[in-house]
Amino acid sequence: MAGSKLVYLFGPEMTDGDAGLVELLGGKGANLAEMAQLGLPVPPGFTITTEVCNAYYKGGRKLPEELRGEVEAALDRIGVAAGRKFGDPGNPLLVSVRSGSRASMPGMMDTILDLGLNDETVAGLVRHAGDERFAYDSYRRFIQMYSDVVLGVDHGLFEDILENFKNLNGLQLDTDLEAEHWKKIVVLFKDAVAKELDQPFPQDTADQLWGAIGAVFGSWENTRAKTYRRLHSISDDWGTAVSVQAMVFGNMGETSATGVAFTRDPSTGEHQLYGEYLINAQGEDVVAGIRTPQPLTAVAVQAVGRDYVSLEEVMPEAFVQLVAVCERLERHYRDMQDIEFTIERGQLWMLQTRSGKRTVEAALRIAVEMANEGIITKEEAILRIDPAGLDHLLHPTIDPAAEKELLTTGLPASPGAASGEIVFTADAAVDAKAQGRDVILVRLETSPEDIHGMHAAVGILTARGGMTSHAAVVARGMGRPCVAGAGALRIDLVAKTLTVGRVTLKSGDVVTIDGGTGEVLKGRVQMRRPELSGAFGTLMSWADTHRRLGVRANADTPRDAEQACHFGAEGIGLCRTEHMFFEADRIIAVRKMILASDEGGRREALSSLLPMQRADFVRLFEIMAGMPVTIRLLDPPLHEFLPHQPHEQEAVAADLGIDVARIRRRVIELSEVNPMLGFRGCRIGILYPEIVEMQARAIFEAALAAEQASGQPVVVEIMLPLVIDRAEFDLVAEVIRETAAAVSSEQDKTFDYQIGTMVELPRSVLRAGDIASGETGAAFFSFGTNDLTQTTMGLSRDDAAPILNSYTAHGIFLADPFVTIDEDGVGELMKIGVERGRKVKPDLKIGICGEHGGDPASVAFCHDAGFTYVSCSPFRVPIARLAAAQAALRSSRG
Amino acid sequence: MAGSKLVYLFGPEMTDGDAGLVELLGGKGANLAEMAQLGLPVPPGFTITTEVCNAYYKGGRKLPEELRGEVEAALDRIGVAAGRKFGDPGNPLLVSVRSGSRASMPGMMDTILDLGLNDETVAGLVRHAGDERFAYDSYRRFIQMYSDVVLGVDHGLFEDILENFKNLNGLQLDTDLEAEHWKKIVVLFKDAVAKELDQPFPQDTADQLWGAIGAVFGSWENTRAKTYRRLHSISDDWGTAVSVQAMVFGNMGETSATGVAFTRDPSTGEHQLYGEYLINAQGEDVVAGIRTPQPLTAVAVQAVGRDYVSLEEVMPEAFVQLVAVCERLERHYRDMQDIEFTIERGQLWMLQTRSGKRTVEAALRIAVEMANEGIITKEEAILRIDPAGLDHLLHPTIDPAAEKELLTTGLPASPGAASGEIVFTADAAVDAKAQGRDVILVRLETSPEDIHGMHAAVGILTARGGMTSHAAVVARGMGRPCVAGAGALRIDLVAKTLTVGRVTLKSGDVVTIDGGTGEVLKGRVQMRRPELSGAFGTLMSWADTHRRLGVRANADTPRDAEQACHFGAEGIGLCRTEHMFFEADRIIAVRKMILASDEGGRREALSSLLPMQRADFVRLFEIMAGMPVTIRLLDPPLHEFLPHQPHEQEAVAADLGIDVARIRRRVIELSEVNPMLGFRGCRIGILYPEIVEMQARAIFEAALAAEQASGQPVVVEIMLPLVIDRAEFDLVAEVIRETAAAVSSEQDKTFDYQIGTMVELPRSVLRAGDIASGETGAAFFSFGTNDLTQTTMGLSRDDAAPILNSYTAHGIFLADPFVTIDEDGVGELMKIGVERGRKVKPDLKIGICGEHGGDPASVAFCHDAGFTYVSCSPFRVPIARLAAAQAALRSSRG
Repeated sequence: MAGSKLVYLFGPEMTDGDAGLVELLGGKGANLAEMAQLGLPVPPGFTITTEVCNAYYKGGRKLPEELRGEVEAALDRIGVAAGRKFGDPGNPLLVSVRSGSRASMPGMMDTILDLGLNDETVAGLVRHAGDERFAYDSYRRFIQMYSDVVLGVDHGLFEDILENFKNLNGLQLDTDLEAEHWKKIVVLFKDAVAKELDQPFPQDTADQLWGAIGAVFGSWENTRAKTYRRLHSISDDWGTAVSVQAMVFGNMGETSATGVAFTRDPSTGEHQLYGEYLINAQGEDVVAGIRTPQPLTAVAVQAVGRDYVSLEEVMPEAFVQLVAVCERLERHYRDMQDIEFTIERGQLWMLQTRSGKRTVEAALRIAVEMANEGIITKEEAILRIDPAGLDHLLHPTIDPAAEKELLTTGLPASPGAASGEIVFTADAAVDAKAQGRDVILVRLETSPEDIHGMHAAVGILTARGGMTSHAAVVARGMGRPCVAGAGALRIDLVAKTLTVGRVTLKSGDVVTIDGGTGEVLKGRVQMRRPELSGAFGTLMSWADTHRRLGVRANADTPRDAEQACHFGAEGIGLCRTEHMFFEADRIIAVRKMILASDEGGRREALSSLLPMQRADFVRLFEIMAGMPVTIRLLDPPLHEFLPHQPHEQEAVAADLGIDVARIRRRVIELSEVNPMLGFRGCRIGILYPEIVEMQARAIFEAALAAEQASGQPVVVEIMLPLVIDRAEFDLVAEVIRETAAAVSSEQDKTFDYQIGTMVELPRSVLRAGDIASGETGAAFFSFGTNDLTQTTMGLSRDDAAPILNSYTAHGIFLADPFVTIDEDGVGELMKIGVERGRKVKPDLKIGICGEHGGDPASVAFCHDAGFTYVSCSPFRVPIARLAAAQAALRSSRG
Repeated sequence: MAGSKLVYLFGPEMTDGDAGLVELLGGKGANLAEMAQLGLPVPPGFTITTEVCNAYYKGGRKLPEELRGEVEAALDRIGVAAGRKFGDPGNPLLVSVRSGSRASMPGMMDTILDLGLNDETVAGLVRHAGDERFAYDSYRRFIQMYSDVVLGVDHGLFEDILENFKNLNGLQLDTDLEAEHWKKIVVLFKDAVAKELDQPFPQDTADQLWGAIGAVFGSWENTRAKTYRRLHSISDDWGTAVSVQAMVFGNMGETSATGVAFTRDPSTGEHQLYGEYLINAQGEDVVAGIRTPQPLTAVAVQAVGRDYVSLEEVMPEAFVQLVAVCERLERHYRDMQDIEFTIERGQLWMLQTRSGKRTVEAALRIAVEMANEGIITKEEAILRIDPAGLDHLLHPTIDPAAEKELLTTGLPASPGAASGEIVFTADAAVDAKAQGRDVILVRLETSPEDIHGMHAAVGILTARGGMTSHAAVVARGMGRPCVAGAGALRIDLVAKTLTVGRVTLKSGDVVTIDGGTGEVLKGRVQMRRPELSGAFGTLMSWADTHRRLGVRANADTPRDAEQACHFGAEGIGLCRTEHMFFEADRIIAVRKMILASDEGGRREALSSLLPMQRADFVRLFEIMAGMPVTIRLLDPPLHEFLPHQPHEQEAVAADLGIDVARIRRRVIELSEVNPMLGFRGCRIGILYPEIVEMQARAIFEAALAAEQASGQPVVVEIMLPLVIDRAEFDLVAEVIRETAAAVSSEQDKTFDYQIGTMVELPRSVLRAGDIASGETGAAFFSFGTNDLTQTTMGLSRDDAAPILNSYTAHGIFLADPFVTIDEDGVGELMKIGVERGRKVKPDLKIGICGEHGGDPASVAFCHDAGFTYVSCSPFRVPIARLAAAQAALRSSRG
């Protein structure tokens, strides 16, 4: 602080900051300075730096002494520029006091307008404006705002007074009040404040200003600002700047106006000025919604076709000036701008400019068009798009204009929205679908037994589980909307009802879920399905030329595989064979196998699964047409395939013609305390090698059949799950190699294939060198970051929701480690695994097939860690492609 | 092989091997050579090396060509030494052919005696022995043994013939048969072989020899030998040697005898010749049990006080010679020897010497006395004792002489034996104990809710779970015998019965369990409680002077702490505070806390727990009298404290005066898919800091009270469980520090304490440097290797039993990773954790408190990895002390 400048001026020929000083001046202050530097009409003002904010908190909420002099001097300069004087009753300078941090925190902190008014200066304002009503209206607004923000008086007090006053005087609307009325209101307001605080409303304008500056700095630490920062990973240390600026008035009669403009359409991205304004109004009136804002342009008025009038028509001069400023600002900032302006008696003033928020559709179009217009490079265009936002494009969403009745909110587990009748079991979902009805499957939590129901449903809603619970993961893979962990739901499976608070819905009632926001809504809600624009395709093609990472999809079914190809996947990085086992005609054979008492019995059941599994693979190979397909051998615990409810067990026993006691015994035998750490993965293949043999045979026979049918080579990669030791890998690989030799000799044909491994447990990482070494070692690694995260952190993803909520609140984790790779822990292990694998096999193919494969930050991590490819659910493929390109561009920039 | 010697001679003035060649000659061959080198009376012979065995297998079970010449030459040399000639009808040399590997594999491989007999040489034997019956008896024994071992004829065939013959001739016992009978038997035997094999019994003695050599080498790969090797970690590559040795006969009349001698008593270790012999007998007669072997010494005969006669009396000359040989051999080998000898017509021959097997009691006494006698050093004495064997000493065991009716066998989960009535619930165990009855608690598996029942029971028996299941771990900690995972048990909780096969026991029936062998026995079985000898104390005191590792105990109760001190623990390395919560008077308050809907409710329940928890700590601190006490804050998932059975829930609801639905809802809320990876450890303290506050307050107030009462300082170490991030550590540590400050100011006293952390998840290891850094970082680490093993390997210890069984059978794991640290995986992580912790804090105290802390191999690992101490269950403290000393001695030897 010592010696450094605390206050930066802006305004005609006095600006000493610019857009580069955003850390010191905040976004608003820096851009005001920049606009002033450009010679644009900016009301003069000054910005108190973020360093003062930090000093304020370090000093126990006290402003540094040296600030006073700098502020007084700056105030004088502004006064000179504006031709008025702060606190001067004859010609008073009024100012706004606003916060502005490095990052945009819209509405989180406090603002005070019209500061500098008191019982004396208000008379000066009357003279200056020639409008007594305007002056006293401004004064009462100032008292109201200042008392609320700075003095801590509840704003309801003023609303009550105003309401009472109107009732007593038979007045309805604020516009019905005349100057005399506002004068009386001002007296009533001041009395109320004096009574409330035991001291009068401050009349000293300097006191007003220091109070306001203190309050704005103080608002950095208010609860909603702190919450916002936590949610948006904004550091508490950044602090806010405070900008004090000469007031200009859009409410000085019919030649005054105020408005906002976007240099391009923020909804569609169309290159056309977009925005709205109000004649004779202040900024807050635009927001308040009492008067209807008008479109800026004549074109826009034509488009809405109603009784609107454009700024272009009513103030053509100011409009032309605004258009020029907008173009200048957009070119200058090289991005679409969101501008606030005021016209005071025909004179245009710029109050703010910043990069405009936009829909994903608009972002794509703007980026592509700006690149084509030569404003930005294609690389910049790629970097402009938030990959996560693309998710939105690929799923139907709730129409923002639709009316909604919110029941509760859960986790936004899989994007998209869906409406349907609620059902409580997977079978009910299948039945309803067969009758052509759309259903939302509602479960406490889902399990692999629900897969067919999840397929049949248009959306999934669970009361438990986190962002990577079974429901969430499977739903994302299927592209089904899902709201998970909606803890307020009470599900009564017997009564088949769903209760939230006082509302109880029964089976067949309709709800709508929004998997992008986590909202659960009553009844059917209007949807919209955004179309993939040309800009999307263009940008993705640009991205593909820059990325170095391959992008594959996790796909278990022909439908998934087709979806994946449609979205540009370059192969299947994870085909979970067990998902094929849950289909109705197979589950019987699978259960027979699990219930068999010996190898012979298992082989018999497996032999009936073989043709079905082979047919699955033939379809997949045909769809993927020569692209690599990584097939993971059976992974989940066997008990997931057995029925757990007594009535299901009885049904299955009847089906299989066996004693139900045998099923129950086997369920108990196979039940586990921690199924995540149990009998699954390659452990199954080691105890029951005949399962490996069947799956390998199905794969090889399918590959030969598909090659013969299509004439195209099939690229098969067989992946072993949960390997932690080379001995395991060798035992299972040997069964696969023997099966390959048998199929090859039976059909008298040769074929290629690779055997690789998941790396999904800490020990897999530690033994990576051993597992990959030599010709018979793993030919590829695929990091299973879901399980690796669970075991590294000791955190079950099915149980983590309450822990993660608390940990995020405490700032222990900045991101959900099941969404974004925990670089300090799991990430370090991944790097160790890559290093050890590549040390023994420099060209080792390394991928990731956990949920993280579709998360932009995790894709960037994989790029930096030297991965060969990422694999994610089909709906995330475009996200991964873009994120991979961005990672490549960022790392090539250093 | 090329050029190396295949055959090594031994015998007077012809020995070219010695005990150093054990890898080449096997234990037996090397010791025969060594004895011959010492000039002891060893029948001449030669040993074919283990390299020939390996060549035999490499060559597809063919012996190398060059062997023939060497064997023939050696045979000639033996003949010369023995004064006979192999195959010579006039004066035939007979030989034995025996296996002998580097490691002792008693009874696993084949042996052939009396080889060289045929229809002609038998006449020579008659002449030489002057005993026709002896000669033909020898011949028929040879045919029988050779046909079985070499020719693969079922030995039952010969037994049938002999039985038939005796029936036809009215004979009862073998001793009733005269020379003429045996002659006829020989003919019958030869006919049977010829008929069975379509060719006559080999008469060519060279053919006999080569057949026998091949068969002995072949027996290296028989099933029982392979199984034995797998169980004892003996490499298949070692191979066996074959020793061919001139036969001497203990069955040549009343001046001949055969016997075994131990240089010290293998049961007690007493320094006194011990063993038995038979006049006029061969080795196999001693084993056969038809005649009763007699004690060697007059003292022993006196001790048994029956109608025995000692070798000392009947063959005083040979006895004196034997005593001298024994003393010589023991001094020479510097260990107690197990010797086989034969006396042929008054002449003593030594057939084998090896280090004798002994009980743990004997091992201790022998080691200490040999050190005191100057035969070995104290360091060698320490290294002679298998630390794991000590376990046996510390628990009551089943009297080896007792009659037993085996029901089934489970895992030997916690050593010691116990008899008691079976009960099926923890509450029943407590009730029975209150009535003074001993009970065995029988459960499918135990949970923390059973703790009070486990305390009340004298032993625990479970149908499920492995060596480190809850039952096993808790039982070992308590020193209760436990048989776990007895899968054959069928428990019917409703009928309160236990069924094994066709036997059904009901509640109240008595069983005996042997936690050292895993046996479950019907009824009450005779026990013995070995006493701790003076030798034990002496050896442990020697060990303590050499070890560098500290040894602490895991102790939760005053009883544990007293036991730990008794066994020489130097502090408590792990006090699990949750165990204190399960006691009857506390569990109500704990449940109230968990069921409370807000912090206020929790604080109220905690305030009633505070005085109880404080009193616990006061007792512990008093017992530990100035030694460090590491107290771990609450660790297990909260649902473990809630009742899960409907009737229990109703009882608790009535107890607490709340609605049972509230309990059920909370149970569902807290239930987890993978409790091992759930809401536990410091995560509880972060969500409910008031629990940390109560525990910290109890600790500090107790420390001050104990210091005041005893005048001795209390050394408190507070340990946070499941920490994976510095932020967690800081949040909880801050609550502890604030509480310390509060207690200090309330009582106006200062006190010291340290805050450290468990390192029990892979991420704890990776973040170890961050967690320990700086003054406020962790002051100590304690590796929780149970959880670290579970998460690193992705293996739940409660579910691992079937996987581990299979993995051990497949040779994937050589040891149970929950018993011995998996050095390649978990061990590497531990080393990383040590390195990162010590890098930021060079004097960081590092311990281990998982089950591994009492495993000798793991203790050695901890020594090598630079740990400060190990902590284990009280009953394992002596084992850890000894293992630590051995590790120090071994590492100082390099």
